[in-house]
Amino acid sequence: MAEALRSVVGGVTAARGFRAGAMSCGIKSDAGTRDLAILIADQPCVAAATFTSSRTAAAPVLVCREHLAAAGWRAQAVIINSGNANCSTGAQGLADARTMAQLVSDRFGIAPELVMVSSTGIIGRPLPMAKIASGISQIEGRYDGGQSFAEGILTTDTRAKTIALEWDAPDPTPDGARVLRIGGSTKGAGMIYPNMATMLCYITTDAAVDQHWLQRELRMAVADSFNMICVDGDMSTNDTVLVMASGLAGNTPFAEGVPGAATFAAALRQVTQTLAREIARDGEGATKVQEVHVAGAATDADARRASRAVTMYRLWQCALAGGDPNWGRIMGALGASGAEFSHDRVAIGLSATLTQPVVWLVRDGVAVDYDQAAAKAQLAGAEVFVHVDLGAGTATAIAWGCDMTHGYIDENTTYTR
Amino acid sequence: MAEALRSVVGGVTAARGFRAGAMSCGIKSDAGTRDLAILIADQPCVAAATFTSSRTAAAPVLVCREHLAAAGWRAQAVIINSGNANCSTGAQGLADARTMAQLVSDRFGIAPELVMVSSTGIIGRPLPMAKIASGISQIEGRYDGGQSFAEGILTTDTRAKTIALEWDAPDPTPDGARVLRIGGSTKGAGMIYPNMATMLCYITTDAAVDQHWLQRELRMAVADSFNMICVDGDMSTNDTVLVMASGLAGNTPFAEGVPGAATFAAALRQVTQTLAREIARDGEGATKVQEVHVAGAATDADARRASRAVTMYRLWQCALAGGDPNWGRIMGALGASGAEFSHDRVAIGLSATLTQPVVWLVRDGVAVDYDQAAAKAQLAGAEVFVHVDLGAGTATAIAWGCDMTHGYIDENTTYTR
Repeated sequence: MAEALRSVVGGVTAARGFRAGAMSCGIKSDAGTRDLAILIADQPCVAAATFTSSRTAAAPVLVCREHLAAAGWRAQAVIINSGNANCSTGAQGLADARTMAQLVSDRFGIAPELVMVSSTGIIGRPLPMAKIASGISQIEGRYDGGQSFAEGILTTDTRAKTIALEWDAPDPTPDGARVLRIGGSTKGAGMIYPNMATMLCYITTDAAVDQHWLQRELRMAVADSFNMICVDGDMSTNDTVLVMASGLAGNTPFAEGVPGAATFAAALRQVTQTLAREIARDGEGATKVQEVHVAGAATDADARRASRAVTMYRLWQCALAGGDPNWGRIMGALGASGAEFSHDRVAIGLSATLTQPVVWLVRDGVAVDYDQAAAKAQLAGAEVFVHVDLGAGTATAIAWGCDMTHGYIDENTTYTR
Repeated sequence: MAEALRSVVGGVTAARGFRAGAMSCGIKSDAGTRDLAILIADQPCVAAATFTSSRTAAAPVLVCREHLAAAGWRAQAVIINSGNANCSTGAQGLADARTMAQLVSDRFGIAPELVMVSSTGIIGRPLPMAKIASGISQIEGRYDGGQSFAEGILTTDTRAKTIALEWDAPDPTPDGARVLRIGGSTKGAGMIYPNMATMLCYITTDAAVDQHWLQRELRMAVADSFNMICVDGDMSTNDTVLVMASGLAGNTPFAEGVPGAATFAAALRQVTQTLAREIARDGEGATKVQEVHVAGAATDADARRASRAVTMYRLWQCALAGGDPNWGRIMGALGASGAEFSHDRVAIGLSATLTQPVVWLVRDGVAVDYDQAAAKAQLAGAEVFVHVDLGAGTATAIAWGCDMTHGYIDENTTYTR
């Protein structure tokens, strides 16, 4: 049996061996808003990461890939600026991203290839390097913790997104605490249809973990979390998910078959899914988060396609905003998803929580005699669960999204002004 | 040389041998709004058609496919209702669609398999067959023409969309008029990302045309017109494009290599592209139409992918609404499109017309020193041209779309209420 996971505070600094903080260095136009964040480990960590698959990946993504390869998938620090994406900035942008890493390297005595770099914000403008250099020179000692770090990486997000978990260690720990911890922090509100989107996510753990196993577990966890959320269907140029494992808990490094590895994997999944859901909840202009459960798909790929298609169908996102149980939009999304199924076997239902009975609107592809008021009631709260059975097999998937309101448009009509 | 194409009035009734009209039969809640339309030919016509590729295609689409196969790709009448999509209505919906055709068959003495059926509107509600039957019994003699027909097929559209062209016939015509005509009418405003979307389009011609050649030409014309428009990225369940050729012009039937066939094909393309562009212009809540020209793609498929990706990227649609020349959104869309290219070879420009010089914002993947006021000026009008060169080859494509405003959301938050 997996050990029970307990929520703790601290975000990315909950695990042993990590410091973090953030400050304002003047990139963002609102004076005093935090726009430079640092996460730093006491010693080099085992690292795993996934990045955007965009053809126009930003310079910091290219530099992270370079550095991870050069350092043998180890990392000790991450420097992140918000307000400027350092994307479509050409050779200068690449040089600037490398300089950001070098400045951290110089300041903290860490090999440059152990420094990861992230940027998020407006595309196509040169990074204000004087501000960043000045910020890095002052950031030491501003280790005001995971919450400050979580705020420093935000752009249009309305709130910081953090989680930390602990559980009982399978081995005695060197410090006698007998617990392992994992924590994370993420940002993202628009341009969210990861594969990856600009979402950035940093996860730290004090568990000792085999790098190859960690990379594989991370890829699977991301596939079922960040790659299953949609705010607007727009993939970004800067998406990054990075895990750093300090190993300070002193456990036998987790890998396939090692006692405790399953619990670590479960904790990693809980961290990524919780943070992914927080991104969907904080979608630009969103008033509701939706969780779409697809069952009865012919294949896993079809289940993913179908569930994501519902979350990104604009007409359904609008109906959701209006509290209109217009299941025809869901049917339209399923039909267009590319998943294989028969129209006359589809069931569609709604619920306001996962535990209450589902109000089924459609069975065998046609409306059942449901109560319209009951259907509307499922859409009245801040969370909506959509249940789909395709009647074509046994595969399932869950995707997360939000509604679409005037707020999304207001946020994005004049973003660069 | 192709003969010159001249615009004429009349829409679907411009060509010889077609009558059309529309009336209110009470499906739509606003009393008196036309919601039942008929197009009827003097004799059976050669027919070609394309339909939605949705897995949840509506009953009338299934019936059209059945009838075309049974009639050897001939058709003589189309009956269309708006206000109800007859989709996700199960066996009853299928029976109702067949009954609609039978009622027209009985009334006009046309074999039922020569009657095409279309529906557009809300998904999942039974067709009000009593109203439709009553309407069909009264529709004879309401042949008030192509404009009335064009209005009868609308849903959330703000205006009718018609076109008709004529050109000099290659052969003498039986009636001595010495001209050929083609005309069409379309509807569509939301759920527009055809492949097909609910767009409905009916095209009539008095040219004699070989059926196989017509089907091939239609497929190519649709690929470059209706399949290149995007309002919201949402494919529909009812999309239909139907061409009926009466042959009354008495020309040698057009087919590969027949004199005059190239002019007919050009006219068909002009009809489909004009109507497709009208759908983009009339997108729900749209204030601007955008035409995205992609050049320098490695393959035709990449050119299509890249141009469509720009039209459907919500963040760019919002920027367009705000008049914000935020080319980073265009770059983001291109990067996420799946097209193959190098970030550092991309050029992006804007213009307010096709004939004026392009204001280039990006070359070699980075911003050039452009004038922000000049860039904004390109977005000030009701039409915007986006120019992209991927620098990866010689393939080109054009896609059409619109901006995204509060109006889109207002239209769709309470559609079924």
